Amino acid sequence: MIGIFDSGIGGLTVLKVLHERFPQEDFLYLGDTARLPYGTKSDQTIRKYLEQNINYLLHNQVTAVIVACNSASSVLRDDETWPVPVMGVIRPGAASALQASESLRIGVIGTRATIAGQAYDKALHRLEPRAQVWSECCPLLVPLVEEGWIRDPITNLILFRYLQPLLEHKIDTLILGCTHYPALTDSIAKIAGGRVHLIDSSMAMAEELQNHFLRGQLREQKGKSPGVLRVCVTDWSQTFSEVARNILGEADFVLESVNLN
Amino acid sequence: MIGIFDSGIGGLTVLKVLHERFPQEDFLYLGDTARLPYGTKSDQTIRKYLEQNINYLLHNQVTAVIVACNSASSVLRDDETWPVPVMGVIRPGAASALQASESLRIGVIGTRATIAGQAYDKALHRLEPRAQVWSECCPLLVPLVEEGWIRDPITNLILFRYLQPLLEHKIDTLILGCTHYPALTDSIAKIAGGRVHLIDSSMAMAEELQNHFLRGQLREQKGKSPGVLRVCVTDWSQTFSEVARNILGEADFVLESVNLN
Repeated sequence: MIGIFDSGIGGLTVLKVLHERFPQEDFLYLGDTARLPYGTKSDQTIRKYLEQNINYLLHNQVTAVIVACNSASSVLRDDETWPVPVMGVIRPGAASALQASESLRIGVIGTRATIAGQAYDKALHRLEPRAQVWSECCPLLVPLVEEGWIRDPITNLILFRYLQPLLEHKIDTLILGCTHYPALTDSIAKIAGGRVHLIDSSMAMAEELQNHFLRGQLREQKGKSPGVLRVCVTDWSQTFSEVARNILGEADFVLESVNLN
Repeated sequence: MIGIFDSGIGGLTVLKVLHERFPQEDFLYLGDTARLPYGTKSDQTIRKYLEQNINYLLHNQVTAVIVACNSASSVLRDDETWPVPVMGVIRPGAASALQASESLRIGVIGTRATIAGQAYDKALHRLEPRAQVWSECCPLLVPLVEEGWIRDPITNLILFRYLQPLLEHKIDTLILGCTHYPALTDSIAKIAGGRVHLIDSSMAMAEELQNHFLRGQLREQKGKSPGVLRVCVTDWSQTFSEVARNILGEADFVLESVNLN
């Protein structure tokens, strides 16, 4: 069983992609809805929550942990020593962006924590020192998505204000550095124009998992289909339950409430 | 020493008013910045946080607890039995609104939790059964204030969308049911028009405290001036520190980081 966590339920978009790509795998998803969002909090607090979440998943016998949350991934260290592989979204996202970009002029949007920590900048420069990176923190996008103002002139105005400084730098690739942002892909694509590649971390994460299987760092489940999806949240509400159903669509899943402290 | 808590630092606006009105009182403020916001979470989770916060303040020998957070106040029960008086903002805010209103047509804006729980509706009807109440939850206002978009055309557009349904009901009084909203008073007043009274809970809370002193339910500190202000947060960041300084202005205060779990 593979563990995956996010500060809330936005990371279910990652779970959905992974379940479609690896339908025979069992997944245990943890959404820390009682303490969301992480992106406005300090590194120390995010680090504490990250460790509690990983320990919860380990306690449930997962064979790997996927950190779907960009803010939590941004406090992962290079020298983590957990008993199972722990994969953040930052490095795979950076690698995808570099594959897509021709001019190596790359934009990043994310929460305050993700942008302030410069995690994408560092990952991009480590993989490609010539890359030029501009970033913008966009604190209003998560609440706009949660309010459901997806195709909305006000959201477009806000997106325009956030994206304009990046577009003036003539980026050709934009990393959507938060699990909520893919919901705004259509509006972002319209404002950015057709020539800017949009990088969605769920796709990058599927590649990363595939690489772990190929390199033998993880054993792929075979011959058993479909895998079981368990979704745990630290704060249960009807809204979360409905959003989870909408995101996961046809897939069968069990929704449970858990207490981390 | 009087305890006061909020999910974050918005409640410092309440502390500031109380400190100006009762300068000889000592105050201990707790901002639960590690778990903010409360307004998007379930009643059970907010109730758990409320109890942890009150217990933390009691452990620090406060003689009364002021719940500055509207979402937390909305889960306070009528039959609370704590060893010291616990005062929420809902009833004082409702009483102020009824004093101000002539038509008894009252609007309420707040977070999802505050509005869904109908705490203001119930408090208003308990005090005045003839009152007519309309409410609107405004999840984007807190992030807009935190983003600093205070006098901003985009914020005005969003306010207009949220307030329009209430104004169509010809309310003459509007309760600003969240500690963040007074920052938007100028814009709200322009959209609502000069004839709508805006009710700010910090003023109502000062009245409530005054009543407790007058009725002898609490002993007022005298002859010692100025009182000491201690501000504790569960997640410390430079941003919080600067916002606290901006809100409290000239007042001296000590800022500390604390751990509730």
